[in-house]
Amino acid sequence: MAAPIRYLTGITTSGTPHIGNYVGALRPAVEASRRPGTENFYFLADYHALIKCEDPLRVQRSTLEIAACWLAIGLDPRQVHFYRQSDIPEIPELTWLLTCVTGKGLLNRAHAYKAQVDKNRAANVDQDADVTAGLFMYPVLMAADILMFKAHKIPVGRDQVQHIEMARDIASSFNHLYGEHLVLPEAEIDETVALLPGTDGRKMSKSYDNVLPLFAPREQLRKQIASIVTDSRAPGEPKPVEGSALFQIYEAFASAEETAQLRQAYADGISWADAKQVLFERIDREIAPMRERYDQLMANPQEIERILQDGARRVRELATPLMLELRRAVGLRSLADVAQGGKKAKAKAALPSFKQYREADGRHYFKFVDAAGALLLQSSGFDSPQDAGRAVARLKQDGLEAVRSQVHVAPGTDEAAVAAALQQLSAS
Amino acid sequence: MAAPIRYLTGITTSGTPHIGNYVGALRPAVEASRRPGTENFYFLADYHALIKCEDPLRVQRSTLEIAACWLAIGLDPRQVHFYRQSDIPEIPELTWLLTCVTGKGLLNRAHAYKAQVDKNRAANVDQDADVTAGLFMYPVLMAADILMFKAHKIPVGRDQVQHIEMARDIASSFNHLYGEHLVLPEAEIDETVALLPGTDGRKMSKSYDNVLPLFAPREQLRKQIASIVTDSRAPGEPKPVEGSALFQIYEAFASAEETAQLRQAYADGISWADAKQVLFERIDREIAPMRERYDQLMANPQEIERILQDGARRVRELATPLMLELRRAVGLRSLADVAQGGKKAKAKAALPSFKQYREADGRHYFKFVDAAGALLLQSSGFDSPQDAGRAVARLKQDGLEAVRSQVHVAPGTDEAAVAAALQQLSAS
Repeated sequence: MAAPIRYLTGITTSGTPHIGNYVGALRPAVEASRRPGTENFYFLADYHALIKCEDPLRVQRSTLEIAACWLAIGLDPRQVHFYRQSDIPEIPELTWLLTCVTGKGLLNRAHAYKAQVDKNRAANVDQDADVTAGLFMYPVLMAADILMFKAHKIPVGRDQVQHIEMARDIASSFNHLYGEHLVLPEAEIDETVALLPGTDGRKMSKSYDNVLPLFAPREQLRKQIASIVTDSRAPGEPKPVEGSALFQIYEAFASAEETAQLRQAYADGISWADAKQVLFERIDREIAPMRERYDQLMANPQEIERILQDGARRVRELATPLMLELRRAVGLRSLADVAQGGKKAKAKAALPSFKQYREADGRHYFKFVDAAGALLLQSSGFDSPQDAGRAVARLKQDGLEAVRSQVHVAPGTDEAAVAAALQQLSAS
Repeated sequence: MAAPIRYLTGITTSGTPHIGNYVGALRPAVEASRRPGTENFYFLADYHALIKCEDPLRVQRSTLEIAACWLAIGLDPRQVHFYRQSDIPEIPELTWLLTCVTGKGLLNRAHAYKAQVDKNRAANVDQDADVTAGLFMYPVLMAADILMFKAHKIPVGRDQVQHIEMARDIASSFNHLYGEHLVLPEAEIDETVALLPGTDGRKMSKSYDNVLPLFAPREQLRKQIASIVTDSRAPGEPKPVEGSALFQIYEAFASAEETAQLRQAYADGISWADAKQVLFERIDREIAPMRERYDQLMANPQEIERILQDGARRVRELATPLMLELRRAVGLRSLADVAQGGKKAKAKAALPSFKQYREADGRHYFKFVDAAGALLLQSSGFDSPQDAGRAVARLKQDGLEAVRSQVHVAPGTDEAAVAAALQQLSAS
């Protein structure tokens, strides 16, 4: 069986999603996360949020709301990797490594930066007025987000393609200098993004103040739907579906059959009030169970925190060994590995290792130490050296989980370091 | 007693120090590290080395040599903080936080960047040709190095003053946006830097190929000293000390009395061969014990690695709580702390906490959990609830060391996280 294709999606932690975001982005993303043969990464991009948002309460609140939204809609944290960017210390570290291989000229050409420069020039002020280093460096952080997990495909809108190309360029530079360590990602452009009209018929957008709320209380949804602008055709008069925002929104939720029924009702002269009731009921049917989950989650932020920390723990098992590999590649290595003049064998010996021994209590133990000799794991006592040896074999083959009850992770280290050392050993 | 003044010095990990570096920088820095009333931070700046050096073996080798040099000269890792930048994951993380508050215009004005731009313009190529984002972002990384440890004074040459001013600017921006969290550092300019002449009379510098080696074998030092350019005055002829590179180098090592003696010998017509022997013996008298320590250290890179990791562990006890504070300040907070509408008290309750309980085995235990309820420490069993309570009190007052034998750090966390949580609790 082929290795799964890795998809990675960053979720900006600002604002509160509305029905337009739901139809255009969230619902299709959650559906896509269930495709067989894929491994899916969804992360809350809170380091990115700091570029634009200087209000700490808003950053925190928004992270909570967005996380609750995705979970309520059906993102299954047992099936996908769902984590918060700022829980992965390897990401800023990789950002620095990539910064050192990124040409400044590449960043000068980023659309978001150039747009700000153009605006400043038009206003006749310094071209970098109000540009933070965060805005300028954003593509490098984004490259780290992607390259950290060797993602193959990044689903994006057309306006984001340049960022993915930059991540490819940066990965290529790194690989060129230090060997083939990073996977070159590809943009997957969705041309069929459903753009929903808002209550005034223009594109649904917070900036137009025309949105239908996603998880507001039911009565608020009803009120907003009632405010959808319609024409003056009276009840009983046939109504055209073309140009009807109400009809378009309905279509985004209804089956083909339901859509055909409403089309017929329009032709038969359904009143606008009745049509709005039909739309409200259809949306609410889909949203109500999610709204309930959303409210439950928002009442239990500890539970969301737990889910995110669990997600972080799992993805760090991928990030830590890769970071170790990249650190080695650039020369950030244990000094204990330095090859002595002519004594290459000594450098090779500097690997993590297992030591088995017998204690005064007559029992048999092992410990696992890193290349520098620092303790990573200490076992409990075994009845025989054979038993200790079997536990070592299981640990090497199946990882820490397999021997959880028989070992302690040493103070000052963590499971990720143990996983990294096991990986280093098996790769040697 | 006043809190000690914190001095911080970054050590670029490239090249191998020579006698000129020793006299001009290393020896005075090691002496300064012993001043009472100071707390001194010395770090190997290997993230910085990546900006200029793409050869991983050189990065690693140079880190080893420079670390061995400083230790051999007498930097005492029990008295100062001696660590490697890349062992402190909080530094790249702080770099990102600072990146978001740094104006790009500030970085445009950095001397090192502008020098490269001027060079490119003169060569009639794109102004950012061969400029990496690493060169451009270097001042932000340097600000993170300094601000991470609330350093007060940064000893620098005049050419480095701008970097310290930038670190002040960046700290001010952060404090302005998020409150007074960072200490504004000051440059301490040493105007009396001793510039030693090399063997050809010009400033001693690797680029002139005129250096006296610091820790090369003794005979190589003798040979290099023999190559010092002198004039054609014969033995017996009086010799002027002015303009004599040999005399200037001698002065940098000798006492006032010894210097007076050589001055007299010059007047008395000492031969150049004898003068060179006097110089060789004087330098070697100071250097020989250090050379021996250097050779021992270079033969035991594991020992240097151990010292650096120990240094990293100690400074991370400072970095981790500050990083936690800064993360809270910008809004990267546990979701479990989110203030519910009108329920502020609940947010306040979300702090790390101790839980005492009795197990089925009849013994008394405690555990220490973080704000999100994740396990940080698990105690062994105590005979009475009073005993468990006393251990909690000791832990709160004196930290993890005080109860080391009675607790286990939970898998998936580390001592730094425990220290941070204790700090959070005591600050609340």
